Amino acid sequence: MSKSVHSVVIVGGSAAGLRCACRLARLQPGWKITVVEKREIFSVAGCGLPYVLSGEVADAEALRLTADGVRRDAQYFREMKGVEVLAGWLASGVDAQAHKLRIARGGAEKVLDWDDLVLATGARPQRLPGQPDHPRVRSLHSFDDLAPLTAGLRRGEIERVIVVGASFVGCELAEAFAALWGAEVRLFEAGLAPLADNVDLEVGAIAARALEEGGVKVQTGAKVERVRAGADDAAVIVGAETHAAQLVMVAIGMEPVVELALRAGVALGPTRAISVDDRLATSVPHIWAIGDCIQVPQGVSERPVYLPLGSHANRQGRTLANILAGRADRFEPVVGVRALKVFDCHVAAAGVTRRVAADRGLPVRSVWLAARDRADYWPEAKELFLHLLYQPGTRRVVGVQAAGQGDVTKRIDVAAQLLHYGATLEDFARLEHAYAPPFAPALDPLAVAAHIALNQEDGIEALSPAHVTSKLDLLDVRRAAESAERPLGGPKVRQIPLGELPGRTAELSGHEWLVVCERGARSAEAVRRLAAAGIKARYLGGGLHWLRAAGWAERLAE
Amino acid sequence: MSKSVHSVVIVGGSAAGLRCACRLARLQPGWKITVVEKREIFSVAGCGLPYVLSGEVADAEALRLTADGVRRDAQYFREMKGVEVLAGWLASGVDAQAHKLRIARGGAEKVLDWDDLVLATGARPQRLPGQPDHPRVRSLHSFDDLAPLTAGLRRGEIERVIVVGASFVGCELAEAFAALWGAEVRLFEAGLAPLADNVDLEVGAIAARALEEGGVKVQTGAKVERVRAGADDAAVIVGAETHAAQLVMVAIGMEPVVELALRAGVALGPTRAISVDDRLATSVPHIWAIGDCIQVPQGVSERPVYLPLGSHANRQGRTLANILAGRADRFEPVVGVRALKVFDCHVAAAGVTRRVAADRGLPVRSVWLAARDRADYWPEAKELFLHLLYQPGTRRVVGVQAAGQGDVTKRIDVAAQLLHYGATLEDFARLEHAYAPPFAPALDPLAVAAHIALNQEDGIEALSPAHVTSKLDLLDVRRAAESAERPLGGPKVRQIPLGELPGRTAELSGHEWLVVCERGARSAEAVRRLAAAGIKARYLGGGLHWLRAAGWAERLAE
Repeated sequence: MSKSVHSVVIVGGSAAGLRCACRLARLQPGWKITVVEKREIFSVAGCGLPYVLSGEVADAEALRLTADGVRRDAQYFREMKGVEVLAGWLASGVDAQAHKLRIARGGAEKVLDWDDLVLATGARPQRLPGQPDHPRVRSLHSFDDLAPLTAGLRRGEIERVIVVGASFVGCELAEAFAALWGAEVRLFEAGLAPLADNVDLEVGAIAARALEEGGVKVQTGAKVERVRAGADDAAVIVGAETHAAQLVMVAIGMEPVVELALRAGVALGPTRAISVDDRLATSVPHIWAIGDCIQVPQGVSERPVYLPLGSHANRQGRTLANILAGRADRFEPVVGVRALKVFDCHVAAAGVTRRVAADRGLPVRSVWLAARDRADYWPEAKELFLHLLYQPGTRRVVGVQAAGQGDVTKRIDVAAQLLHYGATLEDFARLEHAYAPPFAPALDPLAVAAHIALNQEDGIEALSPAHVTSKLDLLDVRRAAESAERPLGGPKVRQIPLGELPGRTAELSGHEWLVVCERGARSAEAVRRLAAAGIKARYLGGGLHWLRAAGWAERLAE
Repeated sequence: MSKSVHSVVIVGGSAAGLRCACRLARLQPGWKITVVEKREIFSVAGCGLPYVLSGEVADAEALRLTADGVRRDAQYFREMKGVEVLAGWLASGVDAQAHKLRIARGGAEKVLDWDDLVLATGARPQRLPGQPDHPRVRSLHSFDDLAPLTAGLRRGEIERVIVVGASFVGCELAEAFAALWGAEVRLFEAGLAPLADNVDLEVGAIAARALEEGGVKVQTGAKVERVRAGADDAAVIVGAETHAAQLVMVAIGMEPVVELALRAGVALGPTRAISVDDRLATSVPHIWAIGDCIQVPQGVSERPVYLPLGSHANRQGRTLANILAGRADRFEPVVGVRALKVFDCHVAAAGVTRRVAADRGLPVRSVWLAARDRADYWPEAKELFLHLLYQPGTRRVVGVQAAGQGDVTKRIDVAAQLLHYGATLEDFARLEHAYAPPFAPALDPLAVAAHIALNQEDGIEALSPAHVTSKLDLLDVRRAAESAERPLGGPKVRQIPLGELPGRTAELSGHEWLVVCERGARSAEAVRRLAAAGIKARYLGGGLHWLRAAGWAERLAE
């Protein structure tokens, strides 16, 4: 009988592997489904770990419970899901021809036969060059990483922390140490702003400011070249400077765990993650791969990308179960959606950034919008900053990034669907949304951003808030009272309220103006009127609101 | 020169008309754009009126301000937008052949010449049969309706209020009178649950419960046949009963204002609103119509619907401006998206309801999901109840409704985009979303609802929470401790925890079971296992959570 039972062995007991195992056990109840997991404690919602550290999630155990309050341990998976999990067993060798997997636990060894092998080996934190294995130099990735960190914090031994890398996890860690534990936190980032792999500078600067306001010292353009650790402290070396702390957290990104794949002869892709086709098949027959160890194609750029996200892992697990069970299914190219909460600032993005687009030779243009997320008169309306990228020829939207205290992820979720369908600016302009004053303005900010982009294609050009300098000829079109209350500094400022502009264009000829107002709407209108009078002008995208949110307002006064 | 200037006259100074006027003035600065508006105070965000009444918006003036705090009056539109608004002028007659509009103000009259006439005449509250014009019988529609209501409330003269019609406005009014003013409020609704035109019974019942918990007495299936008013009170007659109050608010729905259209010979559609094509042209050349006075085609049902929504009005205004200016544009069929906040419960929907589908001969099936809106372990995760409707053959999703304290409108906004593109259950199942624990679970509830529907197509059938009775054979598969803590009442209950089910199916043969658990996931799994053992069963869609949210839990004990 053992020969006739189809056996699927899955290496890795996180979201992807377990989702695949449970669904497969449902679809093929006669099959033998085994999950090999190197850790004793598994099926932990890893994305929640920083929030345990920050205290926002009070009990780490919560990360292991179902919605009904049941702990997801081996017994749960056996009884409720019909899946055998071998926890604490390491997959140590594989024979792809003979269909055998060698696993080890302490001194013991076993060999498992498989008809299909699923690699769900996950990812691990990238390390700095020469990074020592030392208790004062850590990353936060697994459940086991939590206890030593929280113990040190509780004993008050950690008062100064250095976080290397303003990645999503790096920002979450910086917040956790500063907010809950009151530690003095310095965050070093090699790029020009936090989250450089995920959002462009204008949006990253808003996250940087939220970190600074939360008490984190953010140092950008600061590449950590080395880290050293001793008995009393650890230190990072940045250029000629050495910065010491009691703890250095490394959060420069994730890398796929591919050792077993390589041993099986499975091919990697250009991202150094496992390459799979749209059926999640690797280069070796009957070996499949899912989750944080694989690369996926991105629809917008048509290139493979490495995006280790729990949401993809879940979908891949389900899709592969369908495929192994003989159902028609495929894993489609992804849009690429990611999100972060850092203090009271939300940051999220879908599609490609300007930098990625440039790398791939994709010409894009941008607009910026400083909006409110609900009706203007709704007392709880909050700020929302949108950066929208599109291809000038096709007018196809290729990326949307948002930040602010407002409802950021709603707009990014909506944008993700539109990007999936290849929507143009016109499609964004006519999107329908659930409108009522407590939820949204009558025109959704995404639609307004598309209008601004369509206006830009008509010649009403925006300048990025990142490119503002006091060297430009500035035209302030706010009402006199507004300008008096919050004046623009700098030597080259002219002040003419929008309503007076038609009669006073003669004063402005001979210069090329950067027109400025609070949110961008009035200055865009001014550009249109100036253009009609033959005067060249652009306006400040996102207005002074964006400059203030990014901490760049003083640039106008320099 | 007057002959050579193209003249556009727009009747109605609300969202649609003003948006059209302003954009047209931008696109065609040489044209003469005139808006005729019967009220002195105009460009008021009408959707905000109930929130002024409820005190959530402190100052009614806020409804007239731009994002920059400027009042939108005639001077604003003239100076900032290049649009002439004739406020306080009533459009009293029209000659469609001679292209003339007669307008009146007090005793004065004028005739305006137009090359294009835009009807943006809006909507007004429907009246009950024989409804008297009386200060004690009112509706809330315009800015002018506010003052007498709030004055009466401030003087404490209004302690008992009857609201007729659990429409969106009716629910908002009930909340306003009960929450801010502490009035004793009774809400009479002819349908089986509130919002019957917008959501099905299962979702409407959740809104009803939120109203009841806020202190509003909700009486459904109660058709108000007559209303009478006297010096001291007003009363409604429902069947054999008469209910008196100091104020009766009528909120049974809106109707389009079409008198001027009829005088111009413009054709109405089956909804009795103005019929327009996708260019927003009426049946009469050079007469166009936008906003709450028109009907629009609904993409899902392919039929014209009357959906007076501020969001559509804004888009129509912009689209018509583009068309009049000679640009390629069209107003596409709508999905139909609507939203409501009532106390701390959010309700929203996209696409068609089951009732509308039945009216149109569209076969649909449903699933129900009781989810949390964020990661289960996130402390601020809140309940979200999703009702998803799809066509069994094509698996196309035709409607999504949601209610609860959780982030309802995000899911409806996402669903609206997917419905627009004709998405199937498979498309919903693989949707991408901005995942991080503070924002969403790793699998979005919309994707989970699609999974449930796909399972249903595999034979795992859900029963609507609206159809639960204690006459069914109930199988409770919760853990023993859960069942002991919150036992199911009723005579026909069997209790077998899911984990024990495989060994105990013999006990269950010979009956057809309704399997019950807290949220539906475990009972769906039980149905699968019972089916494998040859036992017929369905499960309770949305589980006991839905029953409790809808106030139906006691039905199991009857």
